[in-house]
Amino acid sequence: MLTYTLSESSKLSLYEQLYNCIKQDILSGTISANEKLPSKRNLAKQLSISVMTIENSYNQLLSEGFIYSLPRKGFYASDIGEMFSGYEAPAGFTRDINLERDNIGNRDNKDFIDFASNATDPATFPFATWAKLTRRILSDDQELLMKNPPSNGLAELRIAIANYLREFRGINVSPDNIIIGAGTENIYSILIQLLGHDRIYGVENPGYEKIGLTLDSNAVKCIRIDMDESGIKPELLEQNQVDIIHITPSHHFPTGITMPVKRRYELMNWAVRSDTRYIIEDDYDSEFRLSGRPIPSLYSIDTHEKVIYMNTFTKSLASTIRISYMILPDHLMNEYNQKLSFYASNVPNFEQLVLAKFISEGYYEKHINRMRNISRKKRDLILECIKNGPLAAISEISEEKSGLHFILRVKHNMSEESLRKSCAEHLIHINSVGKDSYMINYSSIPLDKIEVAIKRLEKAMAADVI
Amino acid sequence: MLTYTLSESSKLSLYEQLYNCIKQDILSGTISANEKLPSKRNLAKQLSISVMTIENSYNQLLSEGFIYSLPRKGFYASDIGEMFSGYEAPAGFTRDINLERDNIGNRDNKDFIDFASNATDPATFPFATWAKLTRRILSDDQELLMKNPPSNGLAELRIAIANYLREFRGINVSPDNIIIGAGTENIYSILIQLLGHDRIYGVENPGYEKIGLTLDSNAVKCIRIDMDESGIKPELLEQNQVDIIHITPSHHFPTGITMPVKRRYELMNWAVRSDTRYIIEDDYDSEFRLSGRPIPSLYSIDTHEKVIYMNTFTKSLASTIRISYMILPDHLMNEYNQKLSFYASNVPNFEQLVLAKFISEGYYEKHINRMRNISRKKRDLILECIKNGPLAAISEISEEKSGLHFILRVKHNMSEESLRKSCAEHLIHINSVGKDSYMINYSSIPLDKIEVAIKRLEKAMAADVI
Repeated sequence: MLTYTLSESSKLSLYEQLYNCIKQDILSGTISANEKLPSKRNLAKQLSISVMTIENSYNQLLSEGFIYSLPRKGFYASDIGEMFSGYEAPAGFTRDINLERDNIGNRDNKDFIDFASNATDPATFPFATWAKLTRRILSDDQELLMKNPPSNGLAELRIAIANYLREFRGINVSPDNIIIGAGTENIYSILIQLLGHDRIYGVENPGYEKIGLTLDSNAVKCIRIDMDESGIKPELLEQNQVDIIHITPSHHFPTGITMPVKRRYELMNWAVRSDTRYIIEDDYDSEFRLSGRPIPSLYSIDTHEKVIYMNTFTKSLASTIRISYMILPDHLMNEYNQKLSFYASNVPNFEQLVLAKFISEGYYEKHINRMRNISRKKRDLILECIKNGPLAAISEISEEKSGLHFILRVKHNMSEESLRKSCAEHLIHINSVGKDSYMINYSSIPLDKIEVAIKRLEKAMAADVI
Repeated sequence: MLTYTLSESSKLSLYEQLYNCIKQDILSGTISANEKLPSKRNLAKQLSISVMTIENSYNQLLSEGFIYSLPRKGFYASDIGEMFSGYEAPAGFTRDINLERDNIGNRDNKDFIDFASNATDPATFPFATWAKLTRRILSDDQELLMKNPPSNGLAELRIAIANYLREFRGINVSPDNIIIGAGTENIYSILIQLLGHDRIYGVENPGYEKIGLTLDSNAVKCIRIDMDESGIKPELLEQNQVDIIHITPSHHFPTGITMPVKRRYELMNWAVRSDTRYIIEDDYDSEFRLSGRPIPSLYSIDTHEKVIYMNTFTKSLASTIRISYMILPDHLMNEYNQKLSFYASNVPNFEQLVLAKFISEGYYEKHINRMRNISRKKRDLILECIKNGPLAAISEISEEKSGLHFILRVKHNMSEESLRKSCAEHLIHINSVGKDSYMINYSSIPLDKIEVAIKRLEKAMAADVI
């Protein structure tokens, strides 16, 4: 029986406290592998807290793979007892997730409502704060603005990022291990130069197509590795002699998979078996999950200097801001300093400094919270509009938790050609992600245009029904 | 006998008019190859203008290789009659230029007066104008700031650059052929992806060492090609099976050579002989020559789509601004659009838009003129200080026309070790560029610190004399 003392006065919410307690017990073996957990209702009664709180904790543990569920039976602890000692593979468990395919859309169609664009709605960007910081910096920091920063970026920004990651992402990293770069593709080019052009790279299939294109275009060998319901398949890495993999374990693009703990450790085990192997953890949208705590990063559980962490401000702040960063383990950072620090930092000082102050003075945190709220409102409004309109009868929605987009599956008789024509006529732009499935990305659509946007979507997509 | 009608009311100065007339006559064959030109004094009398004006015209023609001089004999037209029809090599002539070697210095020594840094003196950066444009843009252009620009950069900036190049550099280019990038090394990485990793690159030796390092680090074959007094040696290109060369024909770094017309056409001829060959023309400091008109670019005389033009705002505006660009010939631009336009533009929209307005509203031109004046004042003051101090007796100065740095050669008995110690003691930083020769870069030193800087330099370098 689970007996935990939860405190109302703790800084952590009840659900977080419970999540931590159960997770610790699973990791320490106090709860054995495959041991059944109490039902939500029983545990709620026993701890005198609401069923909703238990449900939140269980969902978080589920999504991180610490527990698994069997239909009509209940929840069980995963077999992960030995994983933290040396990346041993636990016994298996499965989760069902529908795989969807995606492609990167044309983003430049000015007169259309663009359900394919990841551009930022100008109304959500904190222009007033940005302008205020800009004015202050242009007047107070002229000397710093004109001084060549270190190759890996302005110290002020690296310190701000390190502090932010510690506080909000549970990642402890020295600012010295952070490299600032002009966008993810640029960071990639640096990374290829660091790790070597003769390595074999593996990327997720399906996945973020630009990463593969960037690797191809830099003339390194890049293999698209098929996924199963937990993520990239480890056995294919050995088969293809892959050295370096790029993965999005927190939230796979476009399927939405959160990689379970078991697969994480399988990949870590794969990596430690050879000196040339590394895992690139792309944490591109960890700030935007609309439910649950953020998943702990691979980087933070890596004790063998095998994980390279990557993130970007392109999604969280603005797609036109072009600042990304990576965190290198110590030995790779030393190599960077020896081999590649002749490169000048390639992001303007000005942008680096404004962003540094934006983060360190707490505006970034507020902005993220605000963006999450706006995203939630937009999503809820879209879902409501769809529910109350003619699409409701012929469509279903999935992956709506990501906070940036969801998948709409529509049963209609339109050919691709006639749908394309119909969308053009109704001034909307949409990307297909498999047969009769569409990616609805609402990041560029202002809240007050959602209703008209959905009206147009309905007319374009359900033209044969209405 | 040369008879030209020069007009006082022309938009062009007398010396520019005369330069144009003589150049045209040489190109058209009106003045034959190796024909002797009138002496400066005679031509001045005949045209009723000052000897100084003639001298300016002759110097410009000399520096571009249209004429040559023989000691005690006078000036002669170069044999370049056929060059413009199809890149035929003219008969030879020579110029004497001292070669110096250079290395790229450590730029981060905060407490020192840094004669090695190319950082910008904060006092010269137009902060007031920049802040004004910034405020306006943050208030008026929010939608544009948040919109993903085309892969090759914001249209506003490409148009501004094209107009500037047409007006001030005599280059006619469509904005569609310009690619904006986050610094020269980044542009290089794109170019390598475009031209192919299997090409052999040639760079100038001596030259701007970062280009070679960038190529090495991108795993392409890069050969350092020796120079003679006209620039890179064409016969070494064939010998080494070079495909693509990087050159600085307007003003070679660090020797200061302006590549004569003859060598320019030799290299153009080399390039047209194979489809895989290209010339990268790096025009990094054309704005900064303190005397003479800017040399016409290779790009502007290229009729075979063989020249890729590169320039940067790093030297002309601020080293921390990180915006460079290249111009591609049509067929390469088409290839870029097909193969590489999946890349997002990697300079923040904000920086691109401020710079676009800075150029298009005429501030850039004013800034360049102001910078030239400041550079001239700094240079003159430094030279005066040196002349009136203890270094005068033991040193000589060369390459002082570039407007960014000069070479100081000092006859002293200090070992390198004791000089290094002495510089550290006197809080200065200086780079050696060969035995007893030093690069004096004054771009980061404010005008009002020049005197104290030179005092320290004297104490550090002439410690054994004073």
